[in-house]
Amino acid sequence: MMPEKIIPYKIYLEEEEMPRQWYNVRADMKNKPAPLLHPGTLQPITFEELREVFCDELARQELNDTDAYIDIPQEILDFYKMYRPSPLVRAYCLEKKLDTPAKIYYKFEGNNTSGSHKLNSAIAQAYYAKQQGLKGVTTETGAGQWGTALSMACSYFDLDCHVYMVKVSYEQKPFRREVMRTYGAQVTPSPSDTTKVGRKILEEFPGTGGSLGCAISEAVEAAGEREGYRYVLGSVLSQVLLHQSIIGEETKAALRKYDIKPDMIIGCAGGGSNLGGLISPFVGEKIRGEADYRILAVEPASCPSLTRGKYVYDFCDTGKVCPLAKMYTLGSGFMPAPNHAGGLRYHGMSSVVSQLYDDGLIEAVSVEQTAVFKAAEEFARVEGILPAPESAHAIKAAVDEAVKCKETGEEKTIVFGLTGTGYFDMVAYGKFHDGQMVDYIPSEEDLAKGFAGLPPVPGI
Amino acid sequence: MMPEKIIPYKIYLEEEEMPRQWYNVRADMKNKPAPLLHPGTLQPITFEELREVFCDELARQELNDTDAYIDIPQEILDFYKMYRPSPLVRAYCLEKKLDTPAKIYYKFEGNNTSGSHKLNSAIAQAYYAKQQGLKGVTTETGAGQWGTALSMACSYFDLDCHVYMVKVSYEQKPFRREVMRTYGAQVTPSPSDTTKVGRKILEEFPGTGGSLGCAISEAVEAAGEREGYRYVLGSVLSQVLLHQSIIGEETKAALRKYDIKPDMIIGCAGGGSNLGGLISPFVGEKIRGEADYRILAVEPASCPSLTRGKYVYDFCDTGKVCPLAKMYTLGSGFMPAPNHAGGLRYHGMSSVVSQLYDDGLIEAVSVEQTAVFKAAEEFARVEGILPAPESAHAIKAAVDEAVKCKETGEEKTIVFGLTGTGYFDMVAYGKFHDGQMVDYIPSEEDLAKGFAGLPPVPGI
Repeated sequence: MMPEKIIPYKIYLEEEEMPRQWYNVRADMKNKPAPLLHPGTLQPITFEELREVFCDELARQELNDTDAYIDIPQEILDFYKMYRPSPLVRAYCLEKKLDTPAKIYYKFEGNNTSGSHKLNSAIAQAYYAKQQGLKGVTTETGAGQWGTALSMACSYFDLDCHVYMVKVSYEQKPFRREVMRTYGAQVTPSPSDTTKVGRKILEEFPGTGGSLGCAISEAVEAAGEREGYRYVLGSVLSQVLLHQSIIGEETKAALRKYDIKPDMIIGCAGGGSNLGGLISPFVGEKIRGEADYRILAVEPASCPSLTRGKYVYDFCDTGKVCPLAKMYTLGSGFMPAPNHAGGLRYHGMSSVVSQLYDDGLIEAVSVEQTAVFKAAEEFARVEGILPAPESAHAIKAAVDEAVKCKETGEEKTIVFGLTGTGYFDMVAYGKFHDGQMVDYIPSEEDLAKGFAGLPPVPGI
Repeated sequence: MMPEKIIPYKIYLEEEEMPRQWYNVRADMKNKPAPLLHPGTLQPITFEELREVFCDELARQELNDTDAYIDIPQEILDFYKMYRPSPLVRAYCLEKKLDTPAKIYYKFEGNNTSGSHKLNSAIAQAYYAKQQGLKGVTTETGAGQWGTALSMACSYFDLDCHVYMVKVSYEQKPFRREVMRTYGAQVTPSPSDTTKVGRKILEEFPGTGGSLGCAISEAVEAAGEREGYRYVLGSVLSQVLLHQSIIGEETKAALRKYDIKPDMIIGCAGGGSNLGGLISPFVGEKIRGEADYRILAVEPASCPSLTRGKYVYDFCDTGKVCPLAKMYTLGSGFMPAPNHAGGLRYHGMSSVVSQLYDDGLIEAVSVEQTAVFKAAEEFARVEGILPAPESAHAIKAAVDEAVKCKETGEEKTIVFGLTGTGYFDMVAYGKFHDGQMVDYIPSEEDLAKGFAGLPPVPGI
């Protein structure tokens, strides 16, 4: 049953084979992502403006669309060694179960305590904050993966970490909260009375469960008011995609090590950090004409920014205090239905991913959540790993492609990103088991409401 | 900061370096563990008697104290490849934090969805059941690690799996239950009205939260009454230690690969499966006079079977339907205080580990739970991994030894077993953070009550 050349179940890179640079796909993009705009002036944001929000080096990385490779500092490489390289796994059991001629690989990012790929950027952001002599950072978290990752990273560098956690998650996911506390983070349910914006919202909407948009605003305000603090964010930003390129660089190196040529790369897409990181090196080859791949972004049907959104400038947060970004968006006022992939509920998409999509370099598809959980369970039963609902979007698409291969007889090689584990998502799995899960697809009216809140800013 | 010879953060074995045999330490033991006794006749149990409870090959393995090496079937090796080898990690960050000259390594068994080492034996037991043409297996679970592992294993081999889960755990750990359901297991809170013994207990103690002893009895009864079913158990048994020797064999191979000679091996001890598996190859060398190591079993002060128990024959379950074992025990009626390391609350200790301890080949120490959680948190903050409370017992002892090395200046090499992750133990971590955790140490009266229930069976 073994293929011609024996591929191990899990391909690990040796320490000396590990990438030592992040790859910045913007440098190779012919159409650069549109610049962030200052929310007050609506002009492209400058380094001096951006460094008031982010620490200096991260502001530089955010604006850098010319350097293709950026050295990873030794301290970050050392931390990466604790949980990287992540394995590139050949899904032999899944292939057998599907009886497909396709060869399926997945890059598994869940083998660290934060349980997801978020740690790749969290450690970088904490490092640069520490290097600048800051005391701490603030952030928001919804589902909790980013907050957990940042807590771990800050604990490692002995930085204060203050997480504003969407109140409904704070209450429904107490275990996530405890993991963050284990790593020494301060966790505040948002909206809270510790910020002006929080107090204002509590006054307007007493008893509200909060939202990511509100938590972002609180975190930004808190960072601005404290000496030696900056705000950090776990997705959407170009700097985050840069750090996450470690996923794609490792994947490329692992494939090369065994002479494997993928036909297709698949990733789930929320804010775009995992997808962007995984695909960057492959898109780079595609842009440079060195290779061709089909690249597929998979998003939830309930929050379909790529497949049903508009490519325009929009607010990044509901409080409208952050810079504006040009992106595929459903509007910052779009309220995604309560699906169970909390990490894929952002109204917009990374500017980099948006531009690649607009240029036709990547494709996108949306999938419904019951089908996603069905694929997740099938995958868990044969491959062992219990996937996060977010990650399972990529599984669903990969399985669909592998089934198509069975029909056509094609021996395609499919690589997908498995971003994390679902240990803290068992409420959702329970609903699925009990037949209580429903699919949400926004109506045209729902979308129109979201689009109505778009700012009147022309694309640049 | 690197040592003379560069040791990677994580030592992985290549597939061709993986052990292909389990090591059966009983074959090398000069004093063999005392035989199991039939609960009716009180005579050493025979293969014919044992195969009514366990499937044939496992009954054979249980009785085999002569073959030092047993081939691991290819199907099990294939499954092991999905999550093994587990990494042997050099705890560089912990060493730095402790400022110790000691070199600390840990063998991390938590990188699989069941979250612990239990999967090593679960897959073997499921395989032999399948091979015998059985329809399914029954078992009990307390904390839930074993139930999860067995569910995964049965799902892989398409076997029915029925788990009797201690009712209080079933209610307090609904997420564990959902993981098992994800893998297709039937999970019944115990005591239940589905068995005679369950109904009897419910009648006598309406509203009881159940106990491991009761769940064992229900699982054994259920297996006996169904055509094509057998009962399986996740610890204590010699067959389980045999399967878990994969941990020790891999550890030995990884150490050899880098010429590392450990001075000390440390493992947490509940029923003894992880400890026995980790130490077996090293104890073997010690018995054969090829090497010398200090070997340390770490148990909770609240359930101190080795350090305060008696070495006598005792019942393995409170229902007294299982064979009797000679072991260090607190008596099957001993009620351990509600500490948070559910996996270390068994009243007795594996016969193999008990005999090794009685022969002076291994040492034992007990530790209190607040100190254990403090060590767990310290470890998590520097090494990233969030340890299970059980595993953290070994961390606590390893840290204590490393601190001693700092005082004496000794450059000892310490290896400990990190059996699993604590994702489902956040309630306990929360109590620790909130200062609500207390230490339980049984009084002499508590112990006397447990000893009063020992059967009047002389040691053989």
